[in-house]
Amino acid sequence: MEFTAQQIADLLGGEIQGNPLVKVSDFSKIEEGKPGTLSFLSNPKYSQFIYESQASIVLVNKDFHPEKEVQATLIRVEDAYHSLATLLSLVDQTKPKKTGISPLAFVSESANIGENAYIQPFVYIGESVIIGKNARIHPNCSIENGAVLGENVTLYSGVKVYNDCVIGNNCILHSGAVIGSDGFGFAPNGDGSYKKIPQMGNVVLEDNVEIGANSIVDRATLGSTTIRKGVKIDNLVQIAHNVEVGENTVIAAQTGISGSTKLGKQCILAGQVGLAGHLQIADGTIFGAQTGVPNSVKIPNQTLQGYPAIPVMNFHKSAIVHKNLPELQKLIYAMQKRIEELENKIK
Amino acid sequence: MEFTAQQIADLLGGEIQGNPLVKVSDFSKIEEGKPGTLSFLSNPKYSQFIYESQASIVLVNKDFHPEKEVQATLIRVEDAYHSLATLLSLVDQTKPKKTGISPLAFVSESANIGENAYIQPFVYIGESVIIGKNARIHPNCSIENGAVLGENVTLYSGVKVYNDCVIGNNCILHSGAVIGSDGFGFAPNGDGSYKKIPQMGNVVLEDNVEIGANSIVDRATLGSTTIRKGVKIDNLVQIAHNVEVGENTVIAAQTGISGSTKLGKQCILAGQVGLAGHLQIADGTIFGAQTGVPNSVKIPNQTLQGYPAIPVMNFHKSAIVHKNLPELQKLIYAMQKRIEELENKIK
Amino acid sequence: MEFTAQQIADLLGGEIQGNPLVKVSDFSKIEEGKPGTLSFLSNPKYSQFIYESQASIVLVNKDFHPEKEVQATLIRVEDAYHSLATLLSLVDQTKPKKTGISPLAFVSESANIGENAYIQPFVYIGESVIIGKNARIHPNCSIENGAVLGENVTLYSGVKVYNDCVIGNNCILHSGAVIGSDGFGFAPNGDGSYKKIPQMGNVVLEDNVEIGANSIVDRATLGSTTIRKGVKIDNLVQIAHNVEVGENTVIAAQTGISGSTKLGKQCILAGQVGLAGHLQIADGTIFGAQTGVPNSVKIPNQTLQGYPAIPVMNFHKSAIVHKNLPELQKLIYAMQKRIEELENKIK
Repeated sequence: MEFTAQQIADLLGGEIQGNPLVKVSDFSKIEEGKPGTLSFLSNPKYSQFIYESQASIVLVNKDFHPEKEVQATLIRVEDAYHSLATLLSLVDQTKPKKTGISPLAFVSESANIGENAYIQPFVYIGESVIIGKNARIHPNCSIENGAVLGENVTLYSGVKVYNDCVIGNNCILHSGAVIGSDGFGFAPNGDGSYKKIPQMGNVVLEDNVEIGANSIVDRATLGSTTIRKGVKIDNLVQIAHNVEVGENTVIAAQTGISGSTKLGKQCILAGQVGLAGHLQIADGTIFGAQTGVPNSVKIPNQTLQGYPAIPVMNFHKSAIVHKNLPELQKLIYAMQKRIEELENKIK
Repeated sequence: MEFTAQQIADLLGGEIQGNPLVKVSDFSKIEEGKPGTLSFLSNPKYSQFIYESQASIVLVNKDFHPEKEVQATLIRVEDAYHSLATLLSLVDQTKPKKTGISPLAFVSESANIGENAYIQPFVYIGESVIIGKNARIHPNCSIENGAVLGENVTLYSGVKVYNDCVIGNNCILHSGAVIGSDGFGFAPNGDGSYKKIPQMGNVVLEDNVEIGANSIVDRATLGSTTIRKGVKIDNLVQIAHNVEVGENTVIAAQTGISGSTKLGKQCILAGQVGLAGHLQIADGTIFGAQTGVPNSVKIPNQTLQGYPAIPVMNFHKSAIVHKNLPELQKLIYAMQKRIEELENKIK
Repeated sequence: MEFTAQQIADLLGGEIQGNPLVKVSDFSKIEEGKPGTLSFLSNPKYSQFIYESQASIVLVNKDFHPEKEVQATLIRVEDAYHSLATLLSLVDQTKPKKTGISPLAFVSESANIGENAYIQPFVYIGESVIIGKNARIHPNCSIENGAVLGENVTLYSGVKVYNDCVIGNNCILHSGAVIGSDGFGFAPNGDGSYKKIPQMGNVVLEDNVEIGANSIVDRATLGSTTIRKGVKIDNLVQIAHNVEVGENTVIAAQTGISGSTKLGKQCILAGQVGLAGHLQIADGTIFGAQTGVPNSVKIPNQTLQGYPAIPVMNFHKSAIVHKNLPELQKLIYAMQKRIEELENKIK
């Protein structure tokens, strides 16, 4: 399929600067732009590439002002990254979607599979499982007894859903994600060994949640571990038992949240962040990469970093001094000597 | 099933405060307690909820002294969390357990499967594998040639056991756990590339070990990577080749232990801890969250945190000063100036 | 099979010190050396064990000078670890290799499987997949539509390769590794929720790449996430979308690299390192364990550690002062008092 700049601008409500008749049939990264493709510029770090790019069309933000001549036709939109998402989604939707249940899948007699489901080989669907319409279940997934999946759910290959967990509409789970494994709960026996606390609760993912590859959401001891609607979780993330993650919170790769902690709405957790258990984190909190959070955060909309997490401006200031500590220590010892000399003189 | 407070107290050896005839048929979290359910109070952070809880019975520690009137019937026990585990285990044991080998599993002719095993679809059991009685193998597990599983072992869906690994009695492995993948060993070739060191050893999990979802125990280069009895490992943990983890040590999520390190007994590693290779860690060592451990720990029963790991009291003191570094630096520069002024006056 | 010291020395081009006729038929770790086995000494931390080891032969580096009498026959080689790799590889190659496609695997009609492939039960191979000769695909792997695997590729159980990804010759992927999952890309909708950016690119692993268990390489938004030849990646590593990892770079467990970052050649990343997105890291950079990297590294061949990453010598110096911060703060306050006293005297 080919589209003109005019057609794309009309679709996105954008403004054309350049030739409205130029045609594209594919996408490219701006630093690898080829003729006949559409590229985008959103992150200013990549602005340098727009002047050499061979892409025929480049989506840019309304406020982009080229410093040199640009060969490509520009389409100015409110948010180039968002408009790119719109275009890519359109292309994605044109791909034919298969349906049907593979004869190499195992579906329990008591399971209920919605219409237009696509269930691939070596998928296991246990007793009393309910799967909504338009589900796409890739190979080697296991959905155990009593689990419930909403409509338009995609499970990539090798996703495991333990018994009795609930997955909302439009959720996307990437390969190797585990939903509903046992929370890590043990009571000391007094002789050094531990007694397992059976984990009798479940996991509830609300609508529009995305879970990254090999990420884990543990089931609650009692009640539910709950991921609210719109939450986006990256790869290799650990969500412990009884945690609650608030609406539209975003969690980057390799972050871990300990048991019973409650995260507010619209939080952003960068990569490799760790939160202790039983905390309350206010709405809109942002944690920088590798932050350690031993205490609750009560004031909303703060950006925190470091261990223990402190306001990010203070963190950066402390980091600068930290780098300089050996020099500072030398200075202190030198000052100590000068004070001694002064004291000797004045004595 | 319904039980009276009296029946439960008798079972747990607890003391009733309130109505011994009140009945419960389910469990609830204390902050969501409903009539007809039993709840528990173990962590003092949650004490506030006991006064409003609608739970009919609450298990509490012997030394709990309510500050206000409590509506629920209390059962006082030595350790409320441990007693909860006892009750949940009893309920868990009443669930009917299926047995049998699915015709959709692959079992090598030379494999030996113990009685009462339950083996689900798409499980692969390789040559000469031995599986003890009462095994529960969920779908999509792979147990490769020569592996040996003891009695009462549970593998949740998608567990992978490489060839020749040994899993003791009563072990529980959660979804996506990998036992016996190659250790990360490469020798430089001199031209910048690396030569793989074949990993010829195996992994031995002793009895009563639990391994979390997507955690990994790498096989030894030679000999065994060994996880001693009673060890509990959370999700997304990395145990490198030739490591030994001592009895009843507990390792929280996302922690990593580098090659050939030997951890003592009864250690506790919090989340996101990292240990360098070839270390010896004394019995009873506790590492706080996100601790980095570059050196061996010789004195047992210490609590350490930070990078490099130091005694936790010192860590907290340093952290407080760290937060204050920019102010301290200003103070130092101001003092420097005052010393100069003094020196000028006295010259 | 039995070999004499003479035969092994001839094979490795080594020099014998001791009995050239002593025979071995197995390997052992030096600290667990048994008669009739060959052991090795490479890491000087283990030198103490050579004097008590019961191993019949020990491979040592040319420059090893025993401080006491050694009972074993020594074979002196350029690099004992590299020579061990050679011997282990030889033994490994003598193991019989099965071939053939299991009738319990699913292979699309349009897939193309090279000669001598070994494809185990419950493997899914999608449409138009191409697999080179001598592939070894363990159970429960999924290779989705349009993926291409080179020659001599090994996928251990439960590896997932998403559609259209490319895996070079001689690559080894360990259990649970995920190649080609969606990059973590979302554009804000303005109401707090996020719009998914479809990830239309792929992943390319060049030749001789090894990927650890449960590690992930995300597909690019556009273009390719690229892992250059000879790269070795340990377990539980996260490689985000559009990343490029340069030739022969080595990445230890639990490290994460954020989107669009470009790592140079011959870098070494220790465990639990985190890199921010859109960075450029110079060739030969070494990052110590748990390092956080917020900025590009322009000078090659540096060793950096800490957050933010600084030269490792400075890091260690700062760490020493950091431990001492509470004492230093006390000293500063004491000095402040002494300055005040001096000022009062001189006023």
